[in-house]
Formats: sequence, C-alpha cells, structure tokens
Amino acid sequence: MKDTKVNAAILIIGNEILSGRTQDTNTSTLATWLNSIGVKVKEVRVIPDIEETIVDTLNVLRKENDYVFTTGGIGPTHDDITAESVSKAFGVKYEIHKEGFKILEAYYKPGEFNEGRQKMIWMPENAELILNPTSGAPGFSVENVFCLPGVPSIMKSMLGGITNKIVGGEPILSKTISLKTVESEIANSLTKVQDNNKDVEIGSYPFFHAGKLGVSIVLRSEKQSKIDECNLQILKFVNEKKIEVVDR
Amino acid sequence: MKDTKVNAAILIIGNEILSGRTQDTNTSTLATWLNSIGVKVKEVRVIPDIEETIVDTLNVLRKENDYVFTTGGIGPTHDDITAESVSKAFGVKYEIHKEGFKILEAYYKPGEFNEGRQKMIWMPENAELILNPTSGAPGFSVENVFCLPGVPSIMKSMLGGITNKIVGGEPILSKTISLKTVESEIANSLTKVQDNNKDVEIGSYPFFHAGKLGVSIVLRSEKQSKIDECNLQILKFVNEKKIEVVDR
Repeated sequence: MKDTKVNAAILIIGNEILSGRTQDTNTSTLATWLNSIGVKVKEVRVIPDIEETIVDTLNVLRKENDYVFTTGGIGPTHDDITAESVSKAFGVKYEIHKEGFKILEAYYKPGEFNEGRQKMIWMPENAELILNPTSGAPGFSVENVFCLPGVPSIMKSMLGGITNKIVGGEPILSKTISLKTVESEIANSLTKVQDNNKDVEIGSYPFFHAGKLGVSIVLRSEKQSKIDECNLQILKFVNEKKIEVVDR
Repeated sequence: MKDTKVNAAILIIGNEILSGRTQDTNTSTLATWLNSIGVKVKEVRVIPDIEETIVDTLNVLRKENDYVFTTGGIGPTHDDITAESVSKAFGVKYEIHKEGFKILEAYYKPGEFNEGRQKMIWMPENAELILNPTSGAPGFSVENVFCLPGVPSIMKSMLGGITNKIVGGEPILSKTISLKTVESEIANSLTKVQDNNKDVEIGSYPFFHAGKLGVSIVLRSEKQSKIDECNLQILKFVNEKKIEVVDR
C-alpha cells in the first residue's frame, strides 16, 4: 500500500454560488468520496464564470495538487465556459469529442441533438470522457483535472465511473466523540492530547442542535490504532471531569 | 452614491469543511448579506487550520479585495488559530484585547472566565471588536479583514453589528425567470440576449425539484431598468417558443 498524503483541490465554478443564490453541496459530496479513497482535500475555491479567472486558477491548482475536481459550467448555455477555459489552461484545441458526439447522438431522439446540445461535447483535445448515467452529457478529464457538472445529483452519479482513475493513499479514517460540555472546559486537556498525538488531526466543534448543546471532537488519521489510542486519552480526561458522552 | 464593484473574498477556515464532515452554509449567508449592501463576492476559499496557509492566503486576499471575511477558528481550543494567524499576516502583536476581556469578564459568572475562555480575547494588536449577541465571545476586524466564528447561527447574528463598517456600492439586484424547458432549447436565444445586454449578468441553471424539471434564468445588475429590459427580451423569445413560465 503506498504512502498517504495524496492531495486534491476542488474548484467550484459558478456565479450562483458566489451570489449566495445557490448553496454549494458538491464540496461535501466530493470531499467525503475523496476521503474514502485516500485523497485529502487541501483547498476549495469558488470562482465566477470568467474565463481568465478559470484559466489562471486552474493552472495554479493543477500544479500544486495531485488532482483537481471542477464542478459547474459544462452545460449548453452561454455561461458554460469550463471546457473552453480548460482547453486554454492546457494550451490544447477546443473541439468536438468524437466518442462524446456518438454517445449524445444515440441518447437523444432523431432531430433532438441540436446545436445547443452539441456544445456539450466540445471539449479539450484528447479529453477522456466521464460517463453520465443520469442525463447523458458526459464530463471529461485532462491529465489530473476532472470536470464534473454543477447539478449535485448528476455530479454525484458520475463519481463511481472515475473512482478507478484516482490513485489515493490509505483511506482517511475518523471517529467522533460528542460531549455534553463547552469547548473551554476541555480546551487545555485536548491541547495535551493533541501534543501527545501529533499525527492525529483533532478538531473540536461546538454544536447547537435540537435543543442539545455540546462539543464534537473529531479524530482523523489513516491509522485506526492511532485513533483508538487518542480516543482512550480523551475518554480518560472526560471521565475524570465527569463529562457526559452523548450521541450526535 | 458611489460607483459599484466593491469586492470581497470569503475565507472559510476549517478542516471540518475540507473533510466533508460539515456542510458550509456561511458562504451563502455572507454572500446574500454582502449583495444587499452592494458588495460583490469575487472569490471564496476554504483552507485547513494550518498557520502558514492562513497567513499566506489572507495576505493574498486582503490585497486583491476591498474586504475579506473569515469564518472559523476563533474559539478556545488548540485548533482555533485564526487570531494568531491574522496577527502574523499583519505583522502585529497577538495580545489580550482589553475591551474584549471586560466584556467576557462581565458575561461569565465569577470564576467561570477560565484560561480556555480567555484565549478567545487574544487578538491582533488594535483589533476592533465585532460584538456577539448570541454567545458572548466577540469577533474582530483589522483593517479590511473581518473575522467571524464558524458556527452559522452565531456568525449570522454578528453581521448586523458590522453593516455600518462596510462601504458598499449600489445593491446588486436580481430577477429569476423559471421556465418549463431544458437549457438546450433556449441556449441560442439566451446568448443573443446576453450579447445585447453586456452589463447584465445572465445565469442559466437547470433544476430538478419535487418532480419538476426546468431552467431558472437569473438576471443580476445594479440597475433595475436594465434587468427589466433584459426580462422583456427573454419573455419575448419564451412567448415565441411557447415555453411555459413556472414558479420556482
């Protein structure tokens, strides 16, 4: 099994997220999936539908990360400029993808594969298709950049088709311990546990939910044994402080 | 009224968003509020709780934007490193904020203002407080950088207190037209309307919701008259194509 620390960036392309009109949920879906295949999300950026911004941002992210996943901007309308921008970022032609053309030609009824729909198979030269089991129009990848649609249900349905193209490290495991307390009561003890367990990522998150108030401590590591050891050290001080462990 | 195009960046600080465990909703809340006071969100970044990353990212964003809003990392635990990182980004001392100290000393019962809680009023030198009507511990601002907590309900409750510190342009207005159609049916007509109305931002977003399938066209501009004109041009082709306008 190879070493871990395979990194990815997520690039959300779309004015509708920046305006606040649409709540992004693709980050959470992608991050959860990536964790499960041993890829750690290092950074997320949300940017507008502006070609220069997409080109420049993508050229930074694809060099700094093992993988980049973009969502949004691959439909048929004027504001869908991801495929053309990715072509420019890689300095390759923007052209009709022959295999993609055949797929959509077969998908639509005769006469329905119009100019608007044909825009969806204009892609960077030599792009590899990402099949779309939900609504026909494929996404694509170029080198380490994977371009997915913005509609969450369609995006999610396409991940299964690329899992085998991603070479991750060990899956990142996590354990959550929820406590009926406030952060300041456990801050010092938790700092000591973190100092003793440098290679476990320990997060502390207050929650206010359904009338319950508490703190969730989240332990993350590739090694179950390290999470278990850390968990024991936390339960030790929780027990000493007589803090109640709760479901969350 | 000053000209528009006042820009902001949102910087979400927190491993819990990057791991997919927590769904960010602060971006949408902040963006909606900023639009209403005439500030356009140019970029959002989500980064981990790593000091160097926070310092470097903040130093880029605060120079490129009129305002930066950070969320997360200002609580009492070891993973709350925003205030110290912001101090380093600005090259100023990280110290106890005297006014903040008095506020929390009065907020807690005698003896409860412990070391963990005192961490929450360590801030960059000369920071201005952002009052917290929900849970006591204030946020702070330094120059054009406003640091808010990550818990959505608390974050939201603090925005009213800083609205008067933000000098925006004209509020950004929007209109949504929802149609019972698919994007490819309207793509060409919509491109023509966008070409004729360069200073209106026109977005096209397919929706699949409660069994309804359609497209929402969103028009955004500071000028109501330009939105109205654009709307008329869209309704003209919608009418010609006999497309049904629907509620969404």
